[in-house]
Parts: sequence; C-alpha cells; structure tokens
Amino acid sequence: MSHPEQNSPAATQESQALAERIGQWLARMPFAQHLGIRFEGAAPGFGRCAMTIADEHLNMVGIAHGGVVFALADTTFGVACNSDGRVAVALSAHIAFHAPTRVGETLIAEAHRVSQSRHTGHYRVDVTNAEGRAIAQFTGVAYRREDAVEKWMEEAGPQQSE
Amino acid sequence: MSHPEQNSPAATQESQALAERIGQWLARMPFAQHLGIRFEGAAPGFGRCAMTIADEHLNMVGIAHGGVVFALADTTFGVACNSDGRVAVALSAHIAFHAPTRVGETLIAEAHRVSQSRHTGHYRVDVTNAEGRAIAQFTGVAYRREDAVEKWMEEAGPQQSE
Amino acid sequence: MSHPEQNSPAATQESQALAERIGQWLARMPFAQHLGIRFEGAAPGFGRCAMTIADEHLNMVGIAHGGVVFALADTTFGVACNSDGRVAVALSAHIAFHAPTRVGETLIAEAHRVSQSRHTGHYRVDVTNAEGRAIAQFTGVAYRREDAVEKWMEEAGPQQSE
Amino acid sequence: MSHPEQNSPAATQESQALAERIGQWLARMPFAQHLGIRFEGAAPGFGRCAMTIADEHLNMVGIAHGGVVFALADTTFGVACNSDGRVAVALSAHIAFHAPTRVGETLIAEAHRVSQSRHTGHYRVDVTNAEGRAIAQFTGVAYRREDAVEKWMEEAGPQQSE
Repeated sequence: MSHPEQNSPAATQESQALAERIGQWLARMPFAQHLGIRFEGAAPGFGRCAMTIADEHLNMVGIAHGGVVFALADTTFGVACNSDGRVAVALSAHIAFHAPTRVGETLIAEAHRVSQSRHTGHYRVDVTNAEGRAIAQFTGVAYRREDAVEKWMEEAGPQQSE
Repeated sequence: MSHPEQNSPAATQESQALAERIGQWLARMPFAQHLGIRFEGAAPGFGRCAMTIADEHLNMVGIAHGGVVFALADTTFGVACNSDGRVAVALSAHIAFHAPTRVGETLIAEAHRVSQSRHTGHYRVDVTNAEGRAIAQFTGVAYRREDAVEKWMEEAGPQQSE
Repeated sequence: MSHPEQNSPAATQESQALAERIGQWLARMPFAQHLGIRFEGAAPGFGRCAMTIADEHLNMVGIAHGGVVFALADTTFGVACNSDGRVAVALSAHIAFHAPTRVGETLIAEAHRVSQSRHTGHYRVDVTNAEGRAIAQFTGVAYRREDAVEKWMEEAGPQQSE
Repeated sequence: MSHPEQNSPAATQESQALAERIGQWLARMPFAQHLGIRFEGAAPGFGRCAMTIADEHLNMVGIAHGGVVFALADTTFGVACNSDGRVAVALSAHIAFHAPTRVGETLIAEAHRVSQSRHTGHYRVDVTNAEGRAIAQFTGVAYRREDAVEKWMEEAGPQQSE
C-alpha cells in the first residue's frame, strides 16, 4: 500500500483486476465446487458469491444445514481477504442465523473489509436470499501471511485448469 | 427435569437410548452424508462425530476448508442439543481455528452442553485430530422448539431407510 | 405485532415514545452510570448511546479496555432489544476490535435489529469515534422473556428518580 | 520457545515468575481497579482473576451487567495472553452467558491458552461463581505485538506504585 501510484487510475485498475483473478481462482477450490458455490465478483476488500440450495445441503428438518450457510460466507470472506494478493487465513468467525432456507432458494453472500492492520483484518459478510431477506450475518478475523496468493495460483495452475 | 423418576436407572437408560437413536438419525441427514460425517456416540447433552478429510474438502492452499470443520462441529452440536428429544436449532455459533488439517487426517468433534434453560442452550464443541491435537473450538447457542425430534423421525422414516 | 392499528401513525408514535422511555430508563442503570454512558436515542429495534473515554477506562498500554467498549455496545444492544416493551436479555455476543481509543475520545454506539422471532432477536452494534472511524463491531443474540419492561420501570421507579 | 534450556527447572521458574509479575501489574490497570477485579494467579498461558458483584455493577433487572462479566473475562484473558512477556491485544472475543449473577456473589475467571502461533493466540476463559456454577464462557483471539510487556512496566512503574 506504499506505492505513490497506488491510487492512480492505472493502479486502481490493476488492483481491481488482481482481486477478480484471485476471486475466480479461489471459487474453484475443491470444497467450493463440491457445494456449488459460484463466484460473482471481487474488488480490493470485497467479495460476492452465490449458491443454490440443493437436496444434499439439507438437514433433518428440511432446511439448509448451518454448515452450508457458513461455508458460503467463509468462502466469500476468503475472496475478500485475499483480494489484495497476500494469503490470508481465518483465525475465527462468528455467525448468527436469521432465517431458514429451503431447496431451490439462492443465497447471496457479500463480504466487506471493515478494518485491516499489517497482520490482521476484520470482515463482515451478509448472507441474503434472492429477495434480499437476511439469512445470516458472519464476522471473520483474518491473519495475513507473508506469501503471495499468485505464487499459489502459479503452482496450482495446471491442476486447476479445466 | 422435574419428574422424580427422572434419575432412576430406567429413566437414565431410556434417555440414553433416545439420545443415541436421535444422534444416529441426525447423522444420516443429507449434508452430513455429503461430507462423510460419521456418528460416534451420544448421551443426554453430549454428541461425538468424526470425519476423514478428503480431496473435495480442501481449499486452495491444500488444507481443509473452514466450512468443513465448522460443518462437523455444527453437526455434532446438533446431536448434543437434540439429544433430549426436543427439536433445537442453532441461533449463532463462534469458531476459533487452531491448526490446519490435511487430506487423510481424521477429525473428531465432541459436543458438551454447558447450560440449558427452557428455551435455549449453550454448547461447547472441541475438534481434535486423531492424535488429540486441538484443531478448532466451537461455541453454539441453540433455540429449543416445542416440537419433538421423534415426530420428524417418524415422518422422515421411510425416506431415510437404506 | 398483530394489532391491525400497529402501523397507523398513532401506533407508530406510541411505539416510538415507548422505545425512548425505555431507553432513557435503561441508560440510568447502575453500571451504565458507573461508566458514564449517555443515552442518545431509541426507536423500535434501534438504540444509540455514547461515552467519553476517561482515565479510569484505560488498560496498561494507555488505551480503552476492551471491557469498556463491550459495555457500551452491550448497553446500546439492551436499549434496542428492549425497545418494544418485552424484557430481553443477552444470550451471547461477539465483538471485533478494529482500532484503539484514547482518553478524551468519544465513542458512539448504534444498535440495529437484524431479525426477530417470538423468543429471540439478533442485533448488530457499530461503535465508532466522533470522526466516524470504526472502533468495534458487536453482534448480539437476545432472548425475549415474557415480562414487560414497564413492570420493572414501575417497581424500580422511586429508587431511580434523582 | 526454541531455546534448549526452555524447559529446564530454572527456565520454568523464571517463566513462572515473569507471568506472575506481569499478571499482578496488569490487574492494577485503571479499569480493573475501577471494577474491583482481583488478581489471583498466573502461569505461562494461564491467568486467574476474581471480583465480587457490587451495586454499581447491576443492570435494571437487578443482575450483573453483561459488560461486567465480559470485563472480568477479558482482563483474565489479558493476564494469560501477556504472560510470556510479549504484549498481546484482543482482536475479537465471543461470550456466552449461562446464568445471572447477583450482588454479593463472587465471580472467578480462569483463562487457558488453547493454541499459539508466532503472531496470534487463542484463549478460553471460564467464569464461574464461588460454588463452581457456570456463569459465562469467553473465547478470545489475541494478536501478539513485538514489544515487551516489561518495557511498559518500566515506563509505567512510578505512576502505578501506590
């Protein structure tokens, strides 16, 4: 964040392109694919993902398992907290469940950075259904490692290509 | 908890049998099966489940996705908080991630009731690997509904049988 | 919430007056006074309080103790979750600390209801300083009891008057 | 933690003495004194504090304010996470409230380290009353700074002496 050109239009465009490239790559991770999570957008400090609830996501009373909603929120948190190119991992997370979700409903998660220091970051993720009803609110604390996301993208590259 | 016969050996045996029957049924829920979660035991206010990390559970840096660990803990919380026969659902949960997990590792979650009132309950879930290393700590708040778990078991019965 | 006149102007005015009366009363509670918390406004599902950091609120490294920030957020949560007249108590809360606060700074907390069911409610509280900088984010889960806040106000009345 | 002499009796004794010295100093911080928090013991990764609920700690329904219980837990967390001599600050915390507390009751908090990495640490704090009843459970995430607690002790020294 120390380059003088950081806020020039070129730097902004570059940061934006990096965030999208990372977000797209992250959303291809095995567990996100296993759940059917779709990448819908990223920007520095921001991420958006969606998924549609299917039969395999249900619990015994016919609603989406809390772990499904958490996994969507956590993945979107990952898109946002890795968006500036440094690997970030979750230290802890809190989730409040507001309303149940049924088969066929689409869930949308939006993650926003609330604050960031050199080694840590705080994020808020709102999960809603397609009508905008509040489904869950997630708060995540990230630890920022020193390694670059792009290093992992290069290494994983060939395996990830379709 | 007010019946004098509650703590008689027969009542205790009955409570234990109910907790196990409910736990076994809960662990057959679609999302638990989708993840490969195995039921390992239940008692009133207690639950234990396990799973083995497979390729589809990974994130981009080769470790189990936080959503996988959460889902195991949340399922085990469900076994414990439904163990006395009333349907209980999660209001909120907090998870702290202590150590990463890799493919082939087995995770074991144990949920214990910490306190319970008429409508709510607090549970703690410890997730460890097979060597006993702390992987995550989960704290869950449950809301106790008025309906009986067994009513759902009866209704779902035929669909759930293998 | 079932009265047809609920959303008429008169009902709205009455709900608003009740929320303010309750909020003012709650902010006079001993611990809020002990900390110097000031009531700044309430509406159904909403509360706002403020306080100025003084010497007695500090920890050893010269910044406001986390317990001070939590107590302000928790009090404001109480104003919001009791605002419709039923006694509500905290089941659990999560707080993320974004930035430190020093002596002389004013902290402002705003609590918003995110969702509510018959027995429980979820609230979000944002704590900022006077310049609008994010200081902390609090998420609270409330249990709604059957008793009325006004019953407590009547009983406590004489002791509370100055 | 890499010195071979770390676990020798002398090193252990020194670590223990440091933890106690730091804990005693931390418990003299202004806000802890304002609340009447008493230091009861420390060891590497561990802390124990207590307080007695007084009139000024109450909320409007005659029980200890959630902020009081949180502040006791948070202070004890501070004793434990600063115990090895590096300044540690709270990133986030979750608290579940199990039972109310009344005037005259003594609350005891014990904080244990669950895991620690180079820059972060996870702690669990159990708050009970004198009879051992569970009052609250706190989970805290600490960020470990590079500066030494003893540097702050030296600087603050004269001001803190009674």
